Amino acid sequence: MVDAMDIGFIGVGNMGGGMAANLLKAGHHVTVYNRSRDKAEALVQQGAAAAGTVAEASRGEVVFTMLADDDAVEKVAFGSGGLLASLATSATHVSSSTISVALSRRLAAAHADAGQRYVAAPVFGRPEAAAAARLFVVAAGAPQVLQPLVPLFDAIGQRTFVVSEQPHTANLVKLSGNFLLASVIESLGEAVALVAKGGVDKLQYVDILTSTLFDAPAFRSYGGQIARQEFQPADFAAPLGLKDVRLVLAAAEDLRVPMPVASLLRDRLLTLVATGGEDLDWSALTMLAERDAGAVPAGGSDHSA
Amino acid sequence: MVDAMDIGFIGVGNMGGGMAANLLKAGHHVTVYNRSRDKAEALVQQGAAAAGTVAEASRGEVVFTMLADDDAVEKVAFGSGGLLASLATSATHVSSSTISVALSRRLAAAHADAGQRYVAAPVFGRPEAAAAARLFVVAAGAPQVLQPLVPLFDAIGQRTFVVSEQPHTANLVKLSGNFLLASVIESLGEAVALVAKGGVDKLQYVDILTSTLFDAPAFRSYGGQIARQEFQPADFAAPLGLKDVRLVLAAAEDLRVPMPVASLLRDRLLTLVATGGEDLDWSALTMLAERDAGAVPAGGSDHSA
Amino acid sequence: MVDAMDIGFIGVGNMGGGMAANLLKAGHHVTVYNRSRDKAEALVQQGAAAAGTVAEASRGEVVFTMLADDDAVEKVAFGSGGLLASLATSATHVSSSTISVALSRRLAAAHADAGQRYVAAPVFGRPEAAAAARLFVVAAGAPQVLQPLVPLFDAIGQRTFVVSEQPHTANLVKLSGNFLLASVIESLGEAVALVAKGGVDKLQYVDILTSTLFDAPAFRSYGGQIARQEFQPADFAAPLGLKDVRLVLAAAEDLRVPMPVASLLRDRLLTLVATGGEDLDWSALTMLAERDAGAVPAGGSDHSA
Amino acid sequence: MVDAMDIGFIGVGNMGGGMAANLLKAGHHVTVYNRSRDKAEALVQQGAAAAGTVAEASRGEVVFTMLADDDAVEKVAFGSGGLLASLATSATHVSSSTISVALSRRLAAAHADAGQRYVAAPVFGRPEAAAAARLFVVAAGAPQVLQPLVPLFDAIGQRTFVVSEQPHTANLVKLSGNFLLASVIESLGEAVALVAKGGVDKLQYVDILTSTLFDAPAFRSYGGQIARQEFQPADFAAPLGLKDVRLVLAAAEDLRVPMPVASLLRDRLLTLVATGGEDLDWSALTMLAERDAGAVPAGGSDHSA
Repeated sequence: MVDAMDIGFIGVGNMGGGMAANLLKAGHHVTVYNRSRDKAEALVQQGAAAAGTVAEASRGEVVFTMLADDDAVEKVAFGSGGLLASLATSATHVSSSTISVALSRRLAAAHADAGQRYVAAPVFGRPEAAAAARLFVVAAGAPQVLQPLVPLFDAIGQRTFVVSEQPHTANLVKLSGNFLLASVIESLGEAVALVAKGGVDKLQYVDILTSTLFDAPAFRSYGGQIARQEFQPADFAAPLGLKDVRLVLAAAEDLRVPMPVASLLRDRLLTLVATGGEDLDWSALTMLAERDAGAVPAGGSDHSA
Repeated sequence: MVDAMDIGFIGVGNMGGGMAANLLKAGHHVTVYNRSRDKAEALVQQGAAAAGTVAEASRGEVVFTMLADDDAVEKVAFGSGGLLASLATSATHVSSSTISVALSRRLAAAHADAGQRYVAAPVFGRPEAAAAARLFVVAAGAPQVLQPLVPLFDAIGQRTFVVSEQPHTANLVKLSGNFLLASVIESLGEAVALVAKGGVDKLQYVDILTSTLFDAPAFRSYGGQIARQEFQPADFAAPLGLKDVRLVLAAAEDLRVPMPVASLLRDRLLTLVATGGEDLDWSALTMLAERDAGAVPAGGSDHSA
Repeated sequence: MVDAMDIGFIGVGNMGGGMAANLLKAGHHVTVYNRSRDKAEALVQQGAAAAGTVAEASRGEVVFTMLADDDAVEKVAFGSGGLLASLATSATHVSSSTISVALSRRLAAAHADAGQRYVAAPVFGRPEAAAAARLFVVAAGAPQVLQPLVPLFDAIGQRTFVVSEQPHTANLVKLSGNFLLASVIESLGEAVALVAKGGVDKLQYVDILTSTLFDAPAFRSYGGQIARQEFQPADFAAPLGLKDVRLVLAAAEDLRVPMPVASLLRDRLLTLVATGGEDLDWSALTMLAERDAGAVPAGGSDHSA
Repeated sequence: MVDAMDIGFIGVGNMGGGMAANLLKAGHHVTVYNRSRDKAEALVQQGAAAAGTVAEASRGEVVFTMLADDDAVEKVAFGSGGLLASLATSATHVSSSTISVALSRRLAAAHADAGQRYVAAPVFGRPEAAAAARLFVVAAGAPQVLQPLVPLFDAIGQRTFVVSEQPHTANLVKLSGNFLLASVIESLGEAVALVAKGGVDKLQYVDILTSTLFDAPAFRSYGGQIARQEFQPADFAAPLGLKDVRLVLAAAEDLRVPMPVASLLRDRLLTLVATGGEDLDWSALTMLAERDAGAVPAGGSDHSA
């Protein structure tokens, strides 16, 4: 039995919807807001209150945001009638979106100025994991602010990692994770292009890898996609991948950390987006290795420039 | 109960020694040859016969070679009194070394000309796995040649993958696997340099990765090494890593497959070797990301130029 | 004999000072403004009027800006009492600074909204060329706006190139030129590291290149600097080079043009700045090739990490 | 008036033909050999003697070789009836081909063992320059061996640079020059892709560059080709460019000099060759930047994959 908390949840799309549902299941009062109203409906059926504005969703002790990008979070936070203007003193903004380190720093400063609390708590996991309360939560913030949030993180995820007292470090860890995923995709794409042109079956190749040294979720899910050349519909579209690599490079430049693999990934994702791959999953960047090898990827002919 | 076979084993170092011991345990007659004699001693204690020359070790139905590089295999195979000259008609050479695709093709042709049989069967796994009969065997060759070898592969490994009838494709798969490992090392190095400079604890960071999306042997073993900056003694020294990436690039150039990540890895490993890292494990290339970021890696000061 | 024009000149540092002096020599009335006043003094001696504020310098028919970066131009243009607020209707802002394509677009739109005119006219050349009226002017803007400016460009440069009617294209050309310079520097650095480690004299090597295929100003000036390892005082400091490569990449991302050499240059310049080279000329990035080769560059030992 | 020398010339194609003709004009006795006989005919008309075998062409005091690649030079030098077997004691082999540093070292050792002399004297310049005696000669070897060759170099070129006493250093300088040319091509290709997609005319852009900072032969000739997209017929075909970049990387690996731009060029040229560009000039690699930007290069549609 938990102490029920009063929670706002802004952004109930594929990810946020599952998270909000799990907070409801855990017995909390949840007021949801979404720009397109229909996404909130299902949650209302499950007991959520629907807010008509950001301000209405900002009245609880804790308000989660789970939005697409920096722009969306900036509007919700700094816009008129936004979170900064509406959140009660001592209430906490839990930012779960994958945003830039710079914006996370700016939010931390602005909330502090307003006497409000702020933690960053981005998550690893796909929509299925969000629905199943199986996310991994990477949280950072002041201990006394994080402490009361633990039951909430437990309600949405399978495990929580607290990385430091500086909220933006959680965003840095999340972004670095997406960099590592992109790097796995690119390397797999090059390796598959090589062995396939050398006469090895792609599916068997991926099976060998994931049965041995690379028996990890990242390799299994992307390896299968790559071997089967299934890039539509996109779980995570190429422009979003490009955006995240850009955020990694921006954080790295601020910290003065050269990352040559990240630079290469940026060029690859930019190539994918520039040559017709905008609606494809970011793992489609593996087609570029086959294209450059002069091999036409199976089913990829529609895409190649 | 197996049908005991008459087996030669050339090269009984860290890897070959374990493999030969497991063939003995399985009941086979094994004649071992090693350039430095002392390595053969322990196996003789376990029941092996010791050969004084390559030719003496080449009289069985099956002869394994497990040697350091192309040069060593070339000498053993093509030298006077070598394997080509000594192997009986219809006997089989099982090449388990990590060698170039080009040499594997050359061996296949030479053995065919001599009326002998040839399969490539490189393995994934470290010396401990070799000792424990837990290797993964990647085999390629004609089905009728591979068939009688199955009990031997079962004796040395936990699983065998047959990739095609062309022996050299097994070498291509093995080399591509080492490329993927190097790529994991480099990407981890960049990610660790980034988050560490941003204030995140390295060990915790690796723990987060390997508890979530990157829960694979490759990430666990290299991640820990990288976080603790333990690069000595070398499990797999930097010059060997450079050699394997060179073999990958050579195979890729023959097949006309551009691999930009492999090119980057070659430059990194060359930098490591050129700046004093010759005796370090190849995972030490991750120090370069920290060096370029202006952060002196813990314990790495002896190395940095 | 020219028709004397009433000109404002904002930013009279190393480059702008020479340009303003040449406008004075050509018989124009020039009112100069500089944040640090002393730089304007010499021009007052030569007949310029000194403005105490941006607004005072913005009353002429034509106002040049020649400032360090986007930030400086944004403040001067959009700040209170800035150029947008002060420039007369139909007067022309000539932006000669090396700024981003995005800011140039924004200036074009803002001036159009205010009924003012805008052209971009960045220049190629060093301070000596500015003093000697030997600059190359790359101009873009509406023909009827550019037409009356021709005598002014003739007064400051040896030749003017009009690239299109869209002002920002001139900025794109200027940035691409700096990209090409950086690329020459990096390639020369790699080539010099190679031949020098192979036993060839660096100065003679540069002499061979610049006497033959690479007999161009860019190779002569940077080649000599590189061969002599003279990176201080900086003509163009590493952080400025990094900034320009960043602007190139930003423009390229907006236009969706992957530029792998530019990505590599960004990593190199970031490495230089992160490892102690902040006060060095950007051509010092060539030391990195020697450092990675394990060769200590002559005179560069103070710098290397 | 020169002291006429007895000269052999092996390889009288586009480059060697012009060189041999200029030696004849200078009054020397020249015996020419070419694998395909017809190329020697024109020289016989000009007074040369025709040799039916390499051995016949190897009887003079000095024998030039000007051949396509390492393979061709190896056959001529080490084959039965080859140069090593035929050259008189104290006669000199002048190797002008663009060959690997490793082969040049091997030739130096072999000639020394045979009591013969060896210098490397590769040249910069196109066939027109060879015909016009306007080549640049980069020579290396022992001073007493080089001394008597000076009149010969003067007969074929406009200037001779002696780089060291070690012959192979001349080959290193030549290869590094081709690396710099490839790097100019790639950088120009990226810059042109950028500005062209931004609306700037390509021909005007190249004109701006070559009128200002990049007023060098390399930029003028390649810049024009790139702007006009004229890649056929090939002056220097893509596979030859790939070969030279490979030789640069091999020399750099032996000397342990990482060269990231050279690695990138290798990937680009490999991509060009793998995607249908085998018969195009190596400057066609600039089409790849436009292809990756999603812009179809004018006239390049036949090529793009």
